[in-house]
Amino acid sequence: MSLIRKDRKTVIGILGGGQLARMSSFQAIRLGFDVAILEKTANSPAGVLTKYEFVGWVDDEKVFKKFIDKSDIITLENEFIDYRYLEMIENSGKLVIPSSKTISLIQDKFIQKKTLSRKKIPVPEFLEIKSHTTYSELKKFLGNKFVIKSKKMGYDGYGNATVENQKQFSESLTRLSARHSESYAEKFVNFKKELAVMVVRTKKEIKTYPVVETIQKNHICHTVIASADITEKLKKLTLEISIEAVKAISGYGIFGIELFLDEEDKILINEIAPRPHNSGHYTIEACTTSQFENHIRAVLNLPIGDTNLIKPFAVMINLLGKKNGVGIVQNYNEALNDDEVHLHVYGKEQSRVGRKMGHITLLGDDLSEIIRRAKKNERRIIL
Amino acid sequence: MSLIRKDRKTVIGILGGGQLARMSSFQAIRLGFDVAILEKTANSPAGVLTKYEFVGWVDDEKVFKKFIDKSDIITLENEFIDYRYLEMIENSGKLVIPSSKTISLIQDKFIQKKTLSRKKIPVPEFLEIKSHTTYSELKKFLGNKFVIKSKKMGYDGYGNATVENQKQFSESLTRLSARHSESYAEKFVNFKKELAVMVVRTKKEIKTYPVVETIQKNHICHTVIASADITEKLKKLTLEISIEAVKAISGYGIFGIELFLDEEDKILINEIAPRPHNSGHYTIEACTTSQFENHIRAVLNLPIGDTNLIKPFAVMINLLGKKNGVGIVQNYNEALNDDEVHLHVYGKEQSRVGRKMGHITLLGDDLSEIIRRAKKNERRIIL
Repeated sequence: MSLIRKDRKTVIGILGGGQLARMSSFQAIRLGFDVAILEKTANSPAGVLTKYEFVGWVDDEKVFKKFIDKSDIITLENEFIDYRYLEMIENSGKLVIPSSKTISLIQDKFIQKKTLSRKKIPVPEFLEIKSHTTYSELKKFLGNKFVIKSKKMGYDGYGNATVENQKQFSESLTRLSARHSESYAEKFVNFKKELAVMVVRTKKEIKTYPVVETIQKNHICHTVIASADITEKLKKLTLEISIEAVKAISGYGIFGIELFLDEEDKILINEIAPRPHNSGHYTIEACTTSQFENHIRAVLNLPIGDTNLIKPFAVMINLLGKKNGVGIVQNYNEALNDDEVHLHVYGKEQSRVGRKMGHITLLGDDLSEIIRRAKKNERRIIL
Repeated sequence: MSLIRKDRKTVIGILGGGQLARMSSFQAIRLGFDVAILEKTANSPAGVLTKYEFVGWVDDEKVFKKFIDKSDIITLENEFIDYRYLEMIENSGKLVIPSSKTISLIQDKFIQKKTLSRKKIPVPEFLEIKSHTTYSELKKFLGNKFVIKSKKMGYDGYGNATVENQKQFSESLTRLSARHSESYAEKFVNFKKELAVMVVRTKKEIKTYPVVETIQKNHICHTVIASADITEKLKKLTLEISIEAVKAISGYGIFGIELFLDEEDKILINEIAPRPHNSGHYTIEACTTSQFENHIRAVLNLPIGDTNLIKPFAVMINLLGKKNGVGIVQNYNEALNDDEVHLHVYGKEQSRVGRKMGHITLLGDDLSEIIRRAKKNERRIIL
């Protein structure tokens, strides 16, 4: 039996109203659906697009219930909502895609690593940190340099700390425990490249987007190059591992898989995001079907659109806030000066230094040329 | 001095809330702007996208004023608003793009033809029909077969009648005069092909999209093929004529130029639409920058985006209502069955037989293959 209504627009509820929800909403609406948005503040990037804007969060029983009632099916734009809230939705008789089960295997990164590891999917070596765990035990197992990570709520480098001695270990552990989450430790991977793959899966199909290279600045995704400059053999392996990872967590919907290519040309999974991902923004213009459209299709268990690149190369650069103040582009004439650059502004009310405010994408036949032009364009924009 | 606000989102007011306003709004919002929509009914295709939805029309002074007050600049999605209402906006101190002047030269098709003709831009021969004009006078000047057209408010074949004898002449004249508009007569063009071109113009730039072939069914645009299968020389001529036409009406903004390729390989302008146009929907996926994004850019006098095709061919087919009832796709699984087809659903509350409810686009290297697949897909969709 299909969820999709034939008598009125089907309403897809999205937990979160940020840029990922916004770009998914554009596609949902274009296909003839409606969206309901739950976000803590009014006028969020996605909230402005719909009359079904609910201001509040999952812990506000009344608003949460109204949001669920309005939605025919529910999805999310981040993995930080305690999976038990998703179970509550499921228990009320509505589907959540990806499911509470999948989220429960992802949102605790230690459980995520254990789940992958159990299925023999390659991940960096890791170890739980218990109250009695000592620095020397970790060093013995993980080597001189390792990373401590919060099990939950880590993103864009928050909740991570690299450790090379006893002092750093103690300090980091104190700092991370302030995040009210337990920690675990991972081997530090001296990677050649960071890679990412988007995987879309329904009950009938599974498709992958091209393997891309992601370049971070201060732990935040900055530049994405599609496709990555690695061998075909490595690409194939990366796609196989990514598909296995999604299967390992019983994942349906769209998933961003972050991976390392290490010094020995081994592919290791860094982490899985159960949603559209910054590394897939390039797909809006560069692929036949964008990650956002396929997100919506997968949530509704519809046929997945073609995921191939339509030009040989694409580069995406994030527009990170350059100032604190209103989230308005201050110089549109300069921002649109390169007539092939695609500009996306997220419409956040406030800009902050380093905050993701938008992105640009450029397609072409000559990778070094489009990287140069995109960088030049990014430098010009004041946002 | 720029119109674009740096302290809050710039609000682009659109007169009309149909699919053209909707697709322009998607691009305006994506670029970081906001839209205000004036439409006679609530929950119009564009009205659902914004909190600034004004229900009413230009003849409702109060609503019209609120709409103007909320907008920083105003544009339109059809040419049927009496240009004197646009003058009222201009007199209140706000810009309308395209201007009341341009609209005044377009909305009366007889004035439009006279304006073009005066600038030596090729149009079919035409003659005003005055109260004393006889069938034989028209026949003498225009030949055995000619077309009577309402000067105003004609679209999709409404307001046109082909005449081959005295009886048809009298009947058509009576029928058309019920439209409360004077009429004029035009030579019947036995065309080889109908062509169309989108032209975008700001104070600084003018750019054209590729020449496309349009195929009508019952006077409604049905299929668009980009680019048209005509010689390079004819394409060049078509683009030159289209640019001259936009200049002749002092046009700024985006314009859809409809043309005939006649039996003697002459290019004649049929009519000009001062807005995004059905013949340009293919540009959403097929060109670097869509007609809708360039509409918004031109309204704000921003740099115009690149207008080139990114694949050799594109075909667009309108989804015309197949039934009367709710405007909901009844079979999404079938509608999305071809994984390269781009589906656009306009979200109109009601479907009617023949009403424009959406469109599909397909890109490719082999024109006959994509036409076949697009037609197959269009037949499948129940909307």
